[in-house]
Amino acid sequence: MSQPTGDIGLIGLAVMGQNLILNMNDKGFTVVAYNRTTSKVDHFLENEAKGTKVQGAHSIEELVAKLKRPRKIILLVKAGPAVDAFIEQLEPHLEQGDIIIDGGNSHYPDSIRRAKELESKGLLFVGSGVSGGEEGARYGPSLMPGGSPAAWPHIKEIFQATAAQVNGEPCCDWVGETGAGHYVKMVHNGIEYGDMQLIAEAYDILKRGLGLSESEIADIFFTWNKGVLDSFLIDITANILKFNDDDGQPLVTKILDQAGQKGTGKWTAIAALDAGMPVTLIGEAVFARCLSAIKEERVRASKVIAGPQKEEVFKGDKKQFIDDLEQALYASKIISYTQGFMLMRQTAKDLGWNLNYAGIAQMWRGGCIIKSVFLGDITAAYQKKGDLESLLFDDFFNKAVHKAQPGWRRIIAQAVLWGIPTPAFSTALAFFDGYRSEVVPANLLQAQRDYFGAHTFRVMPGKENSKLKAGEDIHINWTGRGGNVSASSYSA
Amino acid sequence: MSQPTGDIGLIGLAVMGQNLILNMNDKGFTVVAYNRTTSKVDHFLENEAKGTKVQGAHSIEELVAKLKRPRKIILLVKAGPAVDAFIEQLEPHLEQGDIIIDGGNSHYPDSIRRAKELESKGLLFVGSGVSGGEEGARYGPSLMPGGSPAAWPHIKEIFQATAAQVNGEPCCDWVGETGAGHYVKMVHNGIEYGDMQLIAEAYDILKRGLGLSESEIADIFFTWNKGVLDSFLIDITANILKFNDDDGQPLVTKILDQAGQKGTGKWTAIAALDAGMPVTLIGEAVFARCLSAIKEERVRASKVIAGPQKEEVFKGDKKQFIDDLEQALYASKIISYTQGFMLMRQTAKDLGWNLNYAGIAQMWRGGCIIKSVFLGDITAAYQKKGDLESLLFDDFFNKAVHKAQPGWRRIIAQAVLWGIPTPAFSTALAFFDGYRSEVVPANLLQAQRDYFGAHTFRVMPGKENSKLKAGEDIHINWTGRGGNVSASSYSA
Repeated sequence: MSQPTGDIGLIGLAVMGQNLILNMNDKGFTVVAYNRTTSKVDHFLENEAKGTKVQGAHSIEELVAKLKRPRKIILLVKAGPAVDAFIEQLEPHLEQGDIIIDGGNSHYPDSIRRAKELESKGLLFVGSGVSGGEEGARYGPSLMPGGSPAAWPHIKEIFQATAAQVNGEPCCDWVGETGAGHYVKMVHNGIEYGDMQLIAEAYDILKRGLGLSESEIADIFFTWNKGVLDSFLIDITANILKFNDDDGQPLVTKILDQAGQKGTGKWTAIAALDAGMPVTLIGEAVFARCLSAIKEERVRASKVIAGPQKEEVFKGDKKQFIDDLEQALYASKIISYTQGFMLMRQTAKDLGWNLNYAGIAQMWRGGCIIKSVFLGDITAAYQKKGDLESLLFDDFFNKAVHKAQPGWRRIIAQAVLWGIPTPAFSTALAFFDGYRSEVVPANLLQAQRDYFGAHTFRVMPGKENSKLKAGEDIHINWTGRGGNVSASSYSA
Repeated sequence: MSQPTGDIGLIGLAVMGQNLILNMNDKGFTVVAYNRTTSKVDHFLENEAKGTKVQGAHSIEELVAKLKRPRKIILLVKAGPAVDAFIEQLEPHLEQGDIIIDGGNSHYPDSIRRAKELESKGLLFVGSGVSGGEEGARYGPSLMPGGSPAAWPHIKEIFQATAAQVNGEPCCDWVGETGAGHYVKMVHNGIEYGDMQLIAEAYDILKRGLGLSESEIADIFFTWNKGVLDSFLIDITANILKFNDDDGQPLVTKILDQAGQKGTGKWTAIAALDAGMPVTLIGEAVFARCLSAIKEERVRASKVIAGPQKEEVFKGDKKQFIDDLEQALYASKIISYTQGFMLMRQTAKDLGWNLNYAGIAQMWRGGCIIKSVFLGDITAAYQKKGDLESLLFDDFFNKAVHKAQPGWRRIIAQAVLWGIPTPAFSTALAFFDGYRSEVVPANLLQAQRDYFGAHTFRVMPGKENSKLKAGEDIHINWTGRGGNVSASSYSA
């Protein structure tokens, strides 16, 4: 047999797989394509891949035989059992140091498990987030690889060449250990839910609050897209709002207001609850989709619940209001990303990952749904200070949020009085005001918990005395009735 | 051997178990007490249970032998493996129709599993929420039993006699199938998180907004406790705020503002995400505790992030403001319970449970942490209409929320301008405004999802035309570039 010439193998010739192969081929790599239904391989070679260097394989053995060592094989198959099945089929044919890459939408605990299992057998595993859809895969996705660190030097060149490029920098870098790649992709999707919800709230305020038409609102989004909000989602929103049906009516007004979801937003919210991190904006964005989904119940509610009386026409300064709204959206977005990075930081701590935060922001800078100028600013913040505790502590974002604050508050206060729901704007502000509070009223919660359940509390620094000692779990006999019993014997 | 005379057996002589035994004994039942460390049995019989009818058992065999048929055995042991271990020990000694009751804080999926396993062996299982802490167990807890319906007639008398009584009605009724008892107890705890957070926000607004002292705020809570907010938690809050340390300072101000949690609030939020129900208030309450927990980061943030300028002294009508705040708390509480009952309704649908909603409200009416007059009104609402879709559709609550609405909005708008965080008040209002909206801006979300991921959308009723057909999944070629590809081939 001749020497193998394949740089990388790819299993799974659905749209994403085909496009990624063509993209890697364009960048000069020799890809070996395999699919369980092998007629797809032939069809792909004779059509989409015709005239390229792409090689086909009709069996796992053939695929492996055609790859240079260490072999690199990327799976683009349905998340779940199919990934495990292909890994099992591959294992007997691989050698120490070969690399299996899962490029599907796997849930990160599966990637943690797979990394450990494969490493214990001397193989290397990479779980990589791939974002940007069909077009991203073809012309430059955001790639978020994590897993066995020893794999990175071998895949770095091909991954970084294949990824989207922004200002000459690839939107791909090493994320971290075991399931970190898929974890970061999950957080990306959660943040995407948040960004979309913020835009929807701004649209609602402009439409129901100011009474603007879709076309007028589109113009506002086009303007915003030249400023701090410059991003793919703002851009497509403007395009959508300008898109009319054949009768000249904006198509968006004919779309059922019932949002679907595929679960990654929910995963992020659950991960936040499990990590004990207040990622409230993504939580509200997921719940807002849930509320949208119970359309029929909302229609019935709309008939029996009246909102506040609202003046017919807005009498304030429209220009000022729209500027305020831009700031409200911007500030809320800063909070959402602050929360997302807090979640990643805590998870990295809990799981012992060394996450590359500047790299993560750079990976999201282009190629994916949340790509934006904003992410360039986040990249800069983490490049300046890799262990930045919070985006709000970075000079750029600290100034931005201070500047945005007055308008942000005015918008929410007005929406509250109008009766226009702003769950994401509001939770962002509530987080901001809680976060910057040296003292929050959780002291009362602790008192209540000790009162009814003897759960104990600790003393506030500076308030210690002979009965309230620093570092001690203190129980007070609030009523004179109960005893000084330990909390563990209670159940609230 | 003589005929057995035990009405019920109880395993686990920690504080809850001992108190429940003494309570059941007071009500005339003969309880057989067993504990793995049998010296605890002897100690209990010689001390706390001296002079009662309580019998002791020093082995599982002896416990079972002393019980009348069908045997009823309640476990009050640590949730988790200990429950399974005792069930395994009991099984060989039990007969068809005997009843194992888990009265611990088990997570409901475990109770679903145990009910199925025991029923498959001809035994009956009951998972019962027990709320009210030590004092509740001794003098009347809230009991929420669910599981094998055939068990209920055999335990009804003893459970209802042991439970708290309100206006002659026991705070115990049959909840529903398999894990329903523990599920409802979990939702109870989630709602408790919400109630506590709402009270904390009211306290914060009165303290930081109006600048009132703890003693003045206590007086407000005492007044509220005579009205629609009449409840255990409002009552103890007033007591807490009046409780001074030896130096005359309110003790609550010396308590560290870092709230603990035992996980049941988090379970409820995750259950809501899994059920796709917007239980936003409990979600925010859990996240507020998370935010309180990162105290040191908040202290650092407080030094570098400034809030809005606030007038030194409140110049408005204090009386009106306090009345508004009462209405804001009341309305938010109505929303929280509305959401909690929505969650239970959806879960009952998903799992095939027949939940007894009036019974659930009645069970919470007394004996537990969230006991209140309010729950009497909810009981009445579900007694009037057992299949009530939403609390907000009930006349009483519909009127209440309409009446509360203006003050509720004024409070949030003011807090937003002051910079006092109100995550729970705000999310309640956002839910209310979304819920009563026939159209929410999720149409834009659907347009975005179709634009970047070909996820498709449906047409708004009344807007159908030849291209936008009712009931069809529609994809639009928004840019003229992409093809009409099915959504499943994309990954966002």
